[in-house]
Amino acid sequence: MSIRIGILGYGNLGRGVEYATEACADLELAAVFTRREPSSLSIRRKDVPVVSVSEIGQWKDKIDVLILCGGSATDLPVQTPMYAKDFNVIDSFDTHARIPEHFAAVDAAAKAGGKVAIISVGWDPGLFSLNRAYASAILPNGKDYTFWGRGVSQGHSDAIRRIEGVQNAKQYTVPVEAALEAVRSGKNPVLSTREKHTRECFVVAKEGADRARIEKEIVTMPNYFADYDTTVHFIDEKEFNEKHGGLAHGGFVIRSGATGENGAHKHVVEFSLKLDSNPEFTASVLVAYARAAHRLAAEGVKGAKTVLDIPPAYLSPKTAEELRSSLL
Amino acid sequence: MSIRIGILGYGNLGRGVEYATEACADLELAAVFTRREPSSLSIRRKDVPVVSVSEIGQWKDKIDVLILCGGSATDLPVQTPMYAKDFNVIDSFDTHARIPEHFAAVDAAAKAGGKVAIISVGWDPGLFSLNRAYASAILPNGKDYTFWGRGVSQGHSDAIRRIEGVQNAKQYTVPVEAALEAVRSGKNPVLSTREKHTRECFVVAKEGADRARIEKEIVTMPNYFADYDTTVHFIDEKEFNEKHGGLAHGGFVIRSGATGENGAHKHVVEFSLKLDSNPEFTASVLVAYARAAHRLAAEGVKGAKTVLDIPPAYLSPKTAEELRSSLL
Repeated sequence: MSIRIGILGYGNLGRGVEYATEACADLELAAVFTRREPSSLSIRRKDVPVVSVSEIGQWKDKIDVLILCGGSATDLPVQTPMYAKDFNVIDSFDTHARIPEHFAAVDAAAKAGGKVAIISVGWDPGLFSLNRAYASAILPNGKDYTFWGRGVSQGHSDAIRRIEGVQNAKQYTVPVEAALEAVRSGKNPVLSTREKHTRECFVVAKEGADRARIEKEIVTMPNYFADYDTTVHFIDEKEFNEKHGGLAHGGFVIRSGATGENGAHKHVVEFSLKLDSNPEFTASVLVAYARAAHRLAAEGVKGAKTVLDIPPAYLSPKTAEELRSSLL
Repeated sequence: MSIRIGILGYGNLGRGVEYATEACADLELAAVFTRREPSSLSIRRKDVPVVSVSEIGQWKDKIDVLILCGGSATDLPVQTPMYAKDFNVIDSFDTHARIPEHFAAVDAAAKAGGKVAIISVGWDPGLFSLNRAYASAILPNGKDYTFWGRGVSQGHSDAIRRIEGVQNAKQYTVPVEAALEAVRSGKNPVLSTREKHTRECFVVAKEGADRARIEKEIVTMPNYFADYDTTVHFIDEKEFNEKHGGLAHGGFVIRSGATGENGAHKHVVEFSLKLDSNPEFTASVLVAYARAAHRLAAEGVKGAKTVLDIPPAYLSPKTAEELRSSLL
């Protein structure tokens, strides 16, 4: 029997989960839950019910895993503990500093309800975390580097849009090639924030706005831009819509370490992602971990987990035997 | 208390495990077991006993995890099932086609003895398998590519040395850059054996040997070289010893896949290794999984496992809490 998936929240990530579920023969999208008026929501799959989240309690026995597709700032801190009481859940909570408290809240709820919750699933946190964990366990005498990009940072784009006179904006985070090469060479360089990434901004200014002032406000903005070499390009709405509508992203996790006599032998372990669509790829990771949550629940496991706790084989629809003979 | 590690077999891999154990504060090398006369073996750590393997039965309560450092052709198929009855064991069995039968034999022995055995640990099989498993579960609509090198192939070097008139030889497997780039571009190319790797041979000929014949025998050798573009360089013993004494290796696992409407969005997941010393890096992987075996045994788990069955957090000396707050 298929694993019945529910989606809560139908933005870019929820739509990505809809696609990702369809790509898996062992999964079935059972319902999309929304805080909006259900009739106002047009989802791609016309055969799947759209249900008000106020009625989600009636779906306890009809959903095997609920994938929470809200944001980390305000949605997930409330939603994941709330729904982990009644459903096996997956979320993509990505506020790194608040993961311990989120984990504790979700763990208590999931244990109380006898459910499994896998939190902070995606690529960072997620696949990047896995690679940091594997490489640092294998090469204890070494150093980790994480680079992001080239890709769209939603938070930085939003920060630019809040500046007076800005009509629209998109910000790309770009890893510095020379820094990447220094890391790959095994030199274990010490790199400042400025040396690792640059920031490239494409801005549509409102008519008559003072572009020099906008540019200055961007490049001097504390936390967001002041510590980086930032380039600002003013473009018109047409070019913006044509060239900057995508949500591409990616990045690199590199660990360089040494073994042997006086660390004579250097080793470089590198993992990288190049993604045309950040939300669709993240959704694909969520769906693979939904399969794992279902298996854990079937084994009687309860409580919160992260990607670091999940055996890799649990993500696959193949049996352990098939994986050993085809892929190991 | 430290995890007490035993090494069986003190070649390149065993020496690598000796170094890797020393790099981990939570591990302690308790003994090195050998089939040779113990007094003939000089190990680096003078404070660690060298013991004849015939006396290994007396060490059942003094070793937490025994790391088997023999070869896959004849040693491990016998040793791993034999010692899995009395010890938690790790091996690096790498004959891909025979993994299922090896797993079955080891599983039966480990279950009979109430022990944990993790087989086929290293980088391929091992870390490369993990990356194939994660990426294929996440991007079901995609294609995997594994490239090896640039690195020394021991089997191919041996094959050349068996040719009449060859004094010494080293063979490097080299991935074809154009093939790598085609895969990274997301085109999912169909690649022949010849298109993926070239083979580069450095040969010291015996005095008076017919070099043209040796070269022809190499490049036309079935299975080993006939399907590849192979280059043969004749060099003298001095250059051979100076430049070709190392055991560097590495490689790439790349999965390229698509998501979204008609697969409109392409994604490329890439994992690569660049290793100065293949045996020392492999040993470092074995040691991290020894830590995992010890934890599984403490939980009461019994039987054979592979890297696909092990939660990533089990490889780390850090607690789950530490990993969540520092690395997730």
